[in-house]
Amino acid sequence: MIRILFLAMVLFLSLPVAAQNALVLQSDFGNKDGAVAAMKGVAVGVSAQLQIHDLTHEIPTYNIWEAAYRLEQTARYWPSGTVFVSVVDPGVGTQRKSVVLKTKSGHYFVTPDNGTLTFVAGSLGIEAVREIDEAVNRLQNSDQSYTFHGRDVYAYTGARLAAGVITFRGVGLELPLAVVSIPYQRASFHDGSVIGNIPILDVQFGNVWTNISRELFQRLNLKHADQVQVTITHGHVVVFDANVPFHATFGAVDQGSPLLYLNSLNNVALALNQGDFASKFGIGSGGDWAISISPKSCNKGK
Amino acid sequence: MIRILFLAMVLFLSLPVAAQNALVLQSDFGNKDGAVAAMKGVAVGVSAQLQIHDLTHEIPTYNIWEAAYRLEQTARYWPSGTVFVSVVDPGVGTQRKSVVLKTKSGHYFVTPDNGTLTFVAGSLGIEAVREIDEAVNRLQNSDQSYTFHGRDVYAYTGARLAAGVITFRGVGLELPLAVVSIPYQRASFHDGSVIGNIPILDVQFGNVWTNISRELFQRLNLKHADQVQVTITHGHVVVFDANVPFHATFGAVDQGSPLLYLNSLNNVALALNQGDFASKFGIGSGGDWAISISPKSCNKGK
Amino acid sequence: MIRILFLAMVLFLSLPVAAQNALVLQSDFGNKDGAVAAMKGVAVGVSAQLQIHDLTHEIPTYNIWEAAYRLEQTARYWPSGTVFVSVVDPGVGTQRKSVVLKTKSGHYFVTPDNGTLTFVAGSLGIEAVREIDEAVNRLQNSDQSYTFHGRDVYAYTGARLAAGVITFRGVGLELPLAVVSIPYQRASFHDGSVIGNIPILDVQFGNVWTNISRELFQRLNLKHADQVQVTITHGHVVVFDANVPFHATFGAVDQGSPLLYLNSLNNVALALNQGDFASKFGIGSGGDWAISISPKSCNKGK
Repeated sequence: MIRILFLAMVLFLSLPVAAQNALVLQSDFGNKDGAVAAMKGVAVGVSAQLQIHDLTHEIPTYNIWEAAYRLEQTARYWPSGTVFVSVVDPGVGTQRKSVVLKTKSGHYFVTPDNGTLTFVAGSLGIEAVREIDEAVNRLQNSDQSYTFHGRDVYAYTGARLAAGVITFRGVGLELPLAVVSIPYQRASFHDGSVIGNIPILDVQFGNVWTNISRELFQRLNLKHADQVQVTITHGHVVVFDANVPFHATFGAVDQGSPLLYLNSLNNVALALNQGDFASKFGIGSGGDWAISISPKSCNKGK
Repeated sequence: MIRILFLAMVLFLSLPVAAQNALVLQSDFGNKDGAVAAMKGVAVGVSAQLQIHDLTHEIPTYNIWEAAYRLEQTARYWPSGTVFVSVVDPGVGTQRKSVVLKTKSGHYFVTPDNGTLTFVAGSLGIEAVREIDEAVNRLQNSDQSYTFHGRDVYAYTGARLAAGVITFRGVGLELPLAVVSIPYQRASFHDGSVIGNIPILDVQFGNVWTNISRELFQRLNLKHADQVQVTITHGHVVVFDANVPFHATFGAVDQGSPLLYLNSLNNVALALNQGDFASKFGIGSGGDWAISISPKSCNKGK
Repeated sequence: MIRILFLAMVLFLSLPVAAQNALVLQSDFGNKDGAVAAMKGVAVGVSAQLQIHDLTHEIPTYNIWEAAYRLEQTARYWPSGTVFVSVVDPGVGTQRKSVVLKTKSGHYFVTPDNGTLTFVAGSLGIEAVREIDEAVNRLQNSDQSYTFHGRDVYAYTGARLAAGVITFRGVGLELPLAVVSIPYQRASFHDGSVIGNIPILDVQFGNVWTNISRELFQRLNLKHADQVQVTITHGHVVVFDANVPFHATFGAVDQGSPLLYLNSLNNVALALNQGDFASKFGIGSGGDWAISISPKSCNKGK
C-alpha cells in the first residue's frame, strides 16, 4: 500500500511539470477579432494547464519574411522544448506542406513550410522535420473548414506537442532535413568595407537594423566614438550617405543625434537618440535595401 | 494514518484541476491603458492559479453587436466550463442587468445584459440565467465606483466562478430563460436565391462575411469552380454586382482575384486572394447591408 | 517511511503555490515585433510555472510620465507580492540606476529609476529600494548587449523575484528610501474652488481625468445633478469654460451630453455620454493643463 502510494506520488510529481512546455503563437491575424482567441481555445481544450504566450499577431498580412525574422529574433530566448506556432499562410488550402521543425537547440516550430523557417533553420540548426499528419493531428469535426488551418491544424498540433499529448514522432512522417527558404543576401567583408542588407526595421523606435553581425563588424577594428562612413542604397538610389559615430548605446550622443551601435541581436544598427532614424531619412527594409559601412577615411569624408 | 494520507492525496489530486476553468476577457477598453490590467489584477487576486486569456479588447467602443459576434465566433472552440467576461457597457451605472448566462454547451458568459448575448444564446442554447448579486459578488471597497463594473463586478465575479470560489448558483438569483437580443435578419432561401446579411467584416484581411450558412448555401447545388451571381446592396444602393467563382480556398484563384468560399465559421464569405475585398469594393457591415447569391444564369449573366 | 512521505507531501503542497507571484510587464515596445516576447521567453526560462501578464506595451515611446501613471492606475488591484517590470528607458546604457522598489503594500517594481516610480512611491509607500546587482541578476551571456536591459536585466530579475529564485535581498544592495520623481502640481482647495491638473486622458473613450480626489471634491458639498462650473486652461488659454452637471455615471445624461463624475480611480473626471469629450473640446493632458471646479454661482453662470 505504501509503495503504491509512493509510486503514485512520484508519478504525479514528475508527470505534469515534465510534460508541459510553453506554447508561443505568432500570426498576421491582428488582435481586433476572434481568430487568435479561437486558436487559444483549441489549445486550452487540449490541455487546461498549458502556458500560452503571444509572440506577435501584428505581422503585416501575408509577410512571411517578417514572420521568419520575428522567430529568429525571439526563439533563442525561450527554453529548449518551447513550441512556436507561426501562421502567416497566404497559401492556405494549397499544396504547401504543414510541418514541425525541431531545431538542434530543442525548439519546435509548427507552421506552413513557406519560408517562415528561413532564419531559425539556419541559426538554430535543423534536427528533424516532420509533416503534420492531419488524419491524426486535426481538430475534430473541422474537416469542412479549408481556410483556418491556424486553428484547426497548427494550434491543435502545437498544443498537443507542448502538452505532451503527442511526442514529436506523433506529428507525422519524417521529411528530408530541409525547409523552404527565402533567398537573401548575406553580409560580407570586402575591400575594407562591410556590405550588408536591411532585413527589418525596429518599427516601434524607427531604428534601422542590418544583417551585419558583431563578428563581421569587428573586422573594421573600430572602437567606441570612432566615426563610421555609412551608405544606404535602395536599389540604385543612395538614400543616406554620412559619417556616424559608433557607440555602445543611445545616451552616448545628444538627443536627436545619430549613432551606429550593436543591437539586441548583436547586429549593426542605426538610431537617433530618442528619435526615429528610419522616418527622418526615409529608410525602408527588404531585399533591395543595402548598406555599406567603412571606417571614416580622410580622403572621402564629408 | 495511511488512509487519511491517501484521502488527502486523492482530494488534492482531484480538486485544483477540477475547480479551475479558463477565464476569457473581452472589452472595448483597448490595450493602451491600464483598464484591462486592473481587471486581470482583480482576477489574480481571486486566484493566483487562474488561467486568464484575452478574446479581444479592440471591440469598437460601445459596439455591442460586434461584442456579440466575437463571442459567437470563438466560444465554441473553448472547453465547456470556460468563463467569458465581456464588457462593452454603454449603459454602465443604469438599470441594465448584470448577468451570467450558462449555455447548454456548459459555457458561462458574464456581462451586462444589453444584447451582448444575442448570438451565443441562440447558437449554444440557454441553460440558465442568473443576475449578479452585487452584495456578494463585488470587489471589496469598490462601492464608491460607478463607472468600472468591468473591474469591480464582472472580472471579479467571472474569476470567482472560474476558480470555483463560487458555484453558478452563487452568482445570484435565477432569472427567466431569456436574454436581451438585438433584432437581426436571418438568411433565407427564396426563389432559387439565397438572401442574407453582412454581419461583420473579417477586418484584418478585408474578407466579407455573411450570415448564410453552409446548409442554406448548399440548396443552390453548386460545386467548386462554379460561377455565382453575387449582389450586395447597402440600403437601396447596389454596391457590388458580379459573377464570382465558388472555391474551397483562396489559392484556387489568381492573386488579387475574387472568390466565394465557406469561411472558418462555415458561412458564405467573399475574398480577394491576398487582397482586400471590402476596401476594393467599398463594402461595409451591419443591419443595412444585404447580399443575394444565385447560380450564374445565362439569361442575366454579364 | 510514512512520516517521510507525509513530510514530502506537505512540502510539495506548500512550496510551489507559496513561491510564485504574478509577473506583470509594461513597456513602450509596442506589440508589433519580438521585443516583448523576448522578455517573456527569458522569464519562462527562469520558471516555466510563472504567471506572466501584460499591463500595456503601448506607452508612447520614452513617455516616463505615462508609464508612471499606468502603474499607479493598476498596481493596487493586484495582490501583494506581485512583481511589476516597467521598461520605458530613454536612458538605457547611461548612468540611471536599475532598481527594485518594494512598497509598503508589498508590491515590487523593477525599473530604471527615471521617474517611473513617481506615483506609486507616494501612494503605496516606499518600504525599501534596492539596486539591481548585474553581476548576479543579468541574463547569462548578455553582457555584450547594451541596449535591451528590458530583456537582459529587468525581465530576468523580475522573473527571478516573482518565482522565488531570489529574495528581495538577493536583488542587490539597499539604497536610501527615495526614488527619482517627476515634479507635478498637486490639487488644492482654494477660495471655494478646487484647482487641479489633467495628468492623463482616458484615451480609449476620450474622457478627461484629473488629479482631484473624491475627498477634495467633497469640500464643494455638491450632490448628484448639481451644476458645476468647470474651467480648463492650457497654459494661459482658456480651452473650456461651461457648466456641467455632476452625476454618478454616464447614463444619467442624454447621449452626447457632458457630465462631471468620479472615475474608477476615485478622481474627478469629465465625459460625454457615449462621446469623446477630449476631442470635441480639444483637451490634452500634461503639466500645463489646469482645471478649476466650483459650484455654479448665479452671479457668473452663463
